Amino acid sequence: MGSAITYPLSENGVRVRLWGTWLDDELVEAARKGNHPKLGTPLPRGVSLFFAPQLAEALDGADFILVAVTSEGFLQVYERAAGLLEHALPVFGLTKGFVEREGRVLSVSEGALELFRERFDDEEFLWVSVGGPVKAVELSRRIPTATVFGYDDVRLRQLFDSFPTSYYRVFSVRDIRGVELCSALKNVYAIGMGICDGLYEAEGTAYYHNFKAFLFNQAIGEMARLVEEFGGVRDTAFDLAGVGDLFVTSASGRNGIFGRRIGSGGSPEKEYRSMFEAGEVAEGYHTLDLFRKFMGQRTEVGDEGFPLLNAVHRVVFGESSPREELFGLAARCGEGR
Amino acid sequence: MGSAITYPLSENGVRVRLWGTWLDDELVEAARKGNHPKLGTPLPRGVSLFFAPQLAEALDGADFILVAVTSEGFLQVYERAAGLLEHALPVFGLTKGFVEREGRVLSVSEGALELFRERFDDEEFLWVSVGGPVKAVELSRRIPTATVFGYDDVRLRQLFDSFPTSYYRVFSVRDIRGVELCSALKNVYAIGMGICDGLYEAEGTAYYHNFKAFLFNQAIGEMARLVEEFGGVRDTAFDLAGVGDLFVTSASGRNGIFGRRIGSGGSPEKEYRSMFEAGEVAEGYHTLDLFRKFMGQRTEVGDEGFPLLNAVHRVVFGESSPREELFGLAARCGEGR
Repeated sequence: MGSAITYPLSENGVRVRLWGTWLDDELVEAARKGNHPKLGTPLPRGVSLFFAPQLAEALDGADFILVAVTSEGFLQVYERAAGLLEHALPVFGLTKGFVEREGRVLSVSEGALELFRERFDDEEFLWVSVGGPVKAVELSRRIPTATVFGYDDVRLRQLFDSFPTSYYRVFSVRDIRGVELCSALKNVYAIGMGICDGLYEAEGTAYYHNFKAFLFNQAIGEMARLVEEFGGVRDTAFDLAGVGDLFVTSASGRNGIFGRRIGSGGSPEKEYRSMFEAGEVAEGYHTLDLFRKFMGQRTEVGDEGFPLLNAVHRVVFGESSPREELFGLAARCGEGR
Repeated sequence: MGSAITYPLSENGVRVRLWGTWLDDELVEAARKGNHPKLGTPLPRGVSLFFAPQLAEALDGADFILVAVTSEGFLQVYERAAGLLEHALPVFGLTKGFVEREGRVLSVSEGALELFRERFDDEEFLWVSVGGPVKAVELSRRIPTATVFGYDDVRLRQLFDSFPTSYYRVFSVRDIRGVELCSALKNVYAIGMGICDGLYEAEGTAYYHNFKAFLFNQAIGEMARLVEEFGGVRDTAFDLAGVGDLFVTSASGRNGIFGRRIGSGGSPEKEYRSMFEAGEVAEGYHTLDLFRKFMGQRTEVGDEGFPLLNAVHRVVFGESSPREELFGLAARCGEGR
């Protein structure tokens, strides 16, 4: 995603420096020579590429930073970058999921804020959480794409002008919390919808469109309640960060495939591992685990309003039967008997 | 749909009488002898079948009525039934779309109310609009299914107990307007998403998942605004009647196919006709036409907030280019350039 977003930025005249972590050496090397290995096309002219040891060069004189590393690597990369800066810069966070620090689970922006305070004292923490239905390859091919920027400080708005093109459309909402929660949780709910697909494949006598729509709708309702419980704006879940992103994630992607394999009889742990070994990380697996811990830390948030989240958790980590959990969930949701 | 809903009702001990219009003779005949021709299974035991001339018998002693005829036939059937009743009965309306009466376009419940007032003077108009993601075949196969009942008079709630089973889950909302608008309009928006699929098939070099999610999200936002403009509850669009139903309708169905044919180069009128002749009616085609007239009657509702609806209208009735309309729409929605 970090590479894909260089297309609209470059077209807007932004001089982009693309830095790869210590895990990205091959990717950077390949992209220097020709096609970007994951996007299948060359990066835009004018994008400079930097290897892991060149972080200081990449940051030198920057106006703002985009961070698109995985949630596992986020804190380490953020800390390293912050340590190289004289003064704070606005950050656009494309990382999705949760991070662990000192035995606690934090959202990405919370993790960033903790490190920020340790490094910059009383400077302003200028943060944007980037969400919405954006598959990187399609963005790089200039397929019409909508993204949503969750922010708080209105001074950030002027930076937003660097992003929109005719195909990359930017929407914004003053709700960091809602955008980052939806961006992370949609991967979990996509696993649940994938499980439904897997059940259909294993046993279906008629399509499960009704069932999948039921779960999609349930997921959106649960995301809206979760956003609200955690202090975000409920409507964020009803827009690009929730409805839009869950739509694209459930239509295609690793989390849906992971769920499908479970639904058709696979063991969650084995399927996760076999996908991982093939280079396909179903991020929702870790997000589900971390988010349950995140919820556990906020004792004021009960778990009654989130039966689908709980059912997926029991299937993935509790060895519960996918069939019993999803059919059971359907039978409990709604009014009457 | 009228036939499919006899499954949960029968399982709840309701003695269902299923009446077919003058267009349904063959269907009723076939269902009497064996499998229901459209569902592919026999109807539940205990469901009595009635031919068109037997409407009075079918209604005799009924506690409530479900109407599931097409919107074109709705007023005629409703009027005939009302004429046979001594006193008013509660009605569950499964008909989706708009109706025409004396040169005006009305929502289904508005049309029913006009006829009701002419027939029953000052009796109570007890109406439920039934919506949500329900494909009839899947319901008849007992696939988990969620429906939403839009109602106003709380006395109707006791009747809702006749519907839920372990697989047919009922949700309710005090918003007839929102449920009936979403149920009708989702067919129009499904055409729009189908057009996107057709464009991809005709010219795509990468998948259009981002684009389709963009349109899905746009459709939900427009439905929410439309519901609000017409006096319904905005949140209805963010739940089963909107999000859930558009999900299932865009995943499968005649309106999506109709859109796809247009998007890949077909003429809207010809494609509509060729589908019609094959017995596949893309209901969204008429709904789109009627809804524009419906909007035109309410001059207080502007059309600025509904660019996707307008774009689909221009493609289907204005011979506008599907590509220019949808890519153009994307380029206009959002912030910045």
